[in-house]
Amino acid sequence: MRIESLRYTERFGSIRINDLQKVLELDSGRKSESPRKEAIAVHKIEDEVIEDIEGRMAVIIPIKDEKLKLFEGVISAIPHDCLIIVVSNSQIKRVDRFRMEGDTLTQFCRFSQRQALIVHQKDPHLAQGLAEAGYSDMLDETGVVRDGKSEGMVIGILLAMLYKKDYVAFIDSDNYIPGAVWEYIKIYAAGFSLAQSPYAMVRVLWHYKPKISRGMYFKKWGRVSEITNKYMNILISDKTGFETEIIKTANAGEHAMTTKLAEILPYASGYAVEPQELVSIFEDFGGVLPTTNQAAAKEGIEIFQIETRNPHLHEERGRIHLRQMLLPSLSVIYHSAFCSSQVKQEVLKGLIDQGVLQPGEEITKPRLALPPKKANFRSFANFMKDHLHTYSILEEE
Amino acid sequence: MRIESLRYTERFGSIRINDLQKVLELDSGRKSESPRKEAIAVHKIEDEVIEDIEGRMAVIIPIKDEKLKLFEGVISAIPHDCLIIVVSNSQIKRVDRFRMEGDTLTQFCRFSQRQALIVHQKDPHLAQGLAEAGYSDMLDETGVVRDGKSEGMVIGILLAMLYKKDYVAFIDSDNYIPGAVWEYIKIYAAGFSLAQSPYAMVRVLWHYKPKISRGMYFKKWGRVSEITNKYMNILISDKTGFETEIIKTANAGEHAMTTKLAEILPYASGYAVEPQELVSIFEDFGGVLPTTNQAAAKEGIEIFQIETRNPHLHEERGRIHLRQMLLPSLSVIYHSAFCSSQVKQEVLKGLIDQGVLQPGEEITKPRLALPPKKANFRSFANFMKDHLHTYSILEEE
Repeated sequence: MRIESLRYTERFGSIRINDLQKVLELDSGRKSESPRKEAIAVHKIEDEVIEDIEGRMAVIIPIKDEKLKLFEGVISAIPHDCLIIVVSNSQIKRVDRFRMEGDTLTQFCRFSQRQALIVHQKDPHLAQGLAEAGYSDMLDETGVVRDGKSEGMVIGILLAMLYKKDYVAFIDSDNYIPGAVWEYIKIYAAGFSLAQSPYAMVRVLWHYKPKISRGMYFKKWGRVSEITNKYMNILISDKTGFETEIIKTANAGEHAMTTKLAEILPYASGYAVEPQELVSIFEDFGGVLPTTNQAAAKEGIEIFQIETRNPHLHEERGRIHLRQMLLPSLSVIYHSAFCSSQVKQEVLKGLIDQGVLQPGEEITKPRLALPPKKANFRSFANFMKDHLHTYSILEEE
Repeated sequence: MRIESLRYTERFGSIRINDLQKVLELDSGRKSESPRKEAIAVHKIEDEVIEDIEGRMAVIIPIKDEKLKLFEGVISAIPHDCLIIVVSNSQIKRVDRFRMEGDTLTQFCRFSQRQALIVHQKDPHLAQGLAEAGYSDMLDETGVVRDGKSEGMVIGILLAMLYKKDYVAFIDSDNYIPGAVWEYIKIYAAGFSLAQSPYAMVRVLWHYKPKISRGMYFKKWGRVSEITNKYMNILISDKTGFETEIIKTANAGEHAMTTKLAEILPYASGYAVEPQELVSIFEDFGGVLPTTNQAAAKEGIEIFQIETRNPHLHEERGRIHLRQMLLPSLSVIYHSAFCSSQVKQEVLKGLIDQGVLQPGEEITKPRLALPPKKANFRSFANFMKDHLHTYSILEEE
């Protein structure tokens, strides 16, 4: 893969936010031995470097009642050396869709001779393991893990930690284009190969979203992203005193982190999860509030934003109201300890202008799951070691 | 890449027609040293095998007034070691689109440090070179190469031969999904890696065509393919006495050949070009008519049909009449020396049933360009060596 070299980086406390880099060439072919003269403008990332990172990466796929054809396409595109971790919150009762997902995954893994995990979000052992680890704020009143994609993401991170993976990557299960999924993973690996800090994050920007969709979904995401990026940049400018447009991926669902970074971030529910990651990084490492992670602050946090070659085309979930998507995204900014009263006012005004908030209405605070590092990981690992094999595909072979 | 192993092959004279094989895994990761137990059901094709073939492959991209964004996406997806050959029939006069294509290609090649060729179909030197080579049936009354994608394909094959490439692959310039283009090339290479004969062809079947398109284009292609496949299979059954459904890619625009095979086939105009390749192979190597290529007959001709993981999503060119697409496809069957009067009657009836032919109307015979091998290649090479550098990107560096 060839990507544009870094042209610009904004430094903010111990955070390095890298400006957008575009993918230039999906597949850069054989390793070249000689230094190449394009090096100043372009990074060529050799296959062996990417493969090495893939071998240390868990790809977490949250799924909920998704079309199996799409799920099958997505898993077929995850490079072989990655560990696939499917966290399903699909229905079991009327139609056992969870079982169908497991069957699809098993068939794929058998033919491709690879390992994968699949776990149901409501798995009772998992819930018990979390409780043992002092992580019971993930559980609902019935004692199982709450619904929600971000809860699934946290489960995935914890499982990746059990498997000692160095990188955790997130891929949605509703992508129509296996080739795009493949590219996301290559982008993650390319980003990590450029990182200087062990605390790094790669966020994907879609090259474009096709206009062929019948519904409003794409346009709305575009609008939500635009607005979230705007206030995220205002949040930064407010502290630095310089206007910025550096954040271009505030809502990026396609993103990946070093496990070291993933461990120390809290995870907000629903659409708030991706912006919250950024806000939490700003709070902890922006140099304004005191950090709780000296080690990470010393190494620095590095954020990459990389633009794909492939368009993004995913399953349409029917109409989702702007409010439903925008409110959680901006609530994480609004409720940040980092957010000045002036920025709060701007966010409020923005939400009212967009017609998604009534004047006088309050913005609900997003619910945060504790950073995985706050859990007692040894207790979790201890409890899970008797149950982990039940999540494992091909474990019988 | 992992693909299904060959389950079934139909032999027909010295032709081996392999049944459909599906892509199982886009990216099979690092090379494994130990033999793998899935080998009986699955072919794992190692990256180094694919890259070796890519280094010997010319990827021919015929283009005519295509959106530059799409063209840019397509070239960015061609693996680095392939030689890109763009054959453009775009307008020059009012807006110089040919120049824009050249600029796009040059920018891409400069950043990715790769070589490519771009030539205009109406290039006077090219026409002169063809005339010198006794290939003037490609020229129109004004002395330049005729319009038509298949004429562009032949130009591409001849240029690939000048560059001594062992494989010629065709990629359309209107593909919306770079990741799918990338997969096509990997599929070509995977197919060739399995070939036992130096006379091999790989034809791609799309996994599915999204239904999100507004127009009729996809459905019609589906219908045209279905009908062409049907009569192609009837053509075979008529000789073998056994009903067959082996041909599933009669209209496959995405296909590739060893140069050895590409040299000895004639090329029909327009929509007839891909079915004609099969019919010509049947005529020459089906064991019914005498062959004109003893060497190839001895080695055998091998046809692979491989199904993608990616959907196919390409630019809509407005409504194309069923007649316009189906008639040329079936005319190559109808006018084959191989086609019995009984099959001719079936084709006629089929066309009338589809409402694309009036009873009593004649089926136009497709125009065929001579097999490249029939040209005097030495004269062509001799003439072109002074002009070739003008087609070459980055030649000044």
